[in-house]
Amino acid sequence: MSTTSTYTVTGMTCSHCVASVRDEVTKVDGVSAVDVELATGTVIVQSEGPVDRAAVVAAVDEAGYEVTAS
Amino acid sequence: MSTTSTYTVTGMTCSHCVASVRDEVTKVDGVSAVDVELATGTVIVQSEGPVDRAAVVAAVDEAGYEVTAS
Repeated sequence: MSTTSTYTVTGMTCSHCVASVRDEVTKVDGVSAVDVELATGTVIVQSEGPVDRAAVVAAVDEAGYEVTAS
Repeated sequence: MSTTSTYTVTGMTCSHCVASVRDEVTKVDGVSAVDVELATGTVIVQSEGPVDRAAVVAAVDEAGYEVTAS
């Protein structure tokens, strides 16, 4: 089963920021794809089955940004 | 002889951008140190002797930004 979950992230200002977030979130267990929309701060996470939302939040934090809605 | 030259660069929005510019400009022949001030877009280049300004401009372009004053 493919699952899509969406997060809102603040602080991303350019394509380097997008790459940092995508790289970190892609490492989270179960994640199969990550799309990031810079303009809206939207991070779309696809997975086969459920993903630990706290792990995604931690990955965004690791990249240096903050999840404000999930 | 140590020389300091200053450039103004537009388009840098975050610390990743700063790192990209610093990395590229550091590669220019003769450059010994590069400081970048994100808030003002100021790039300060130190060298032992004169540096080819066109090479610095090209390095900034390579990083994805533009020198607007030098």
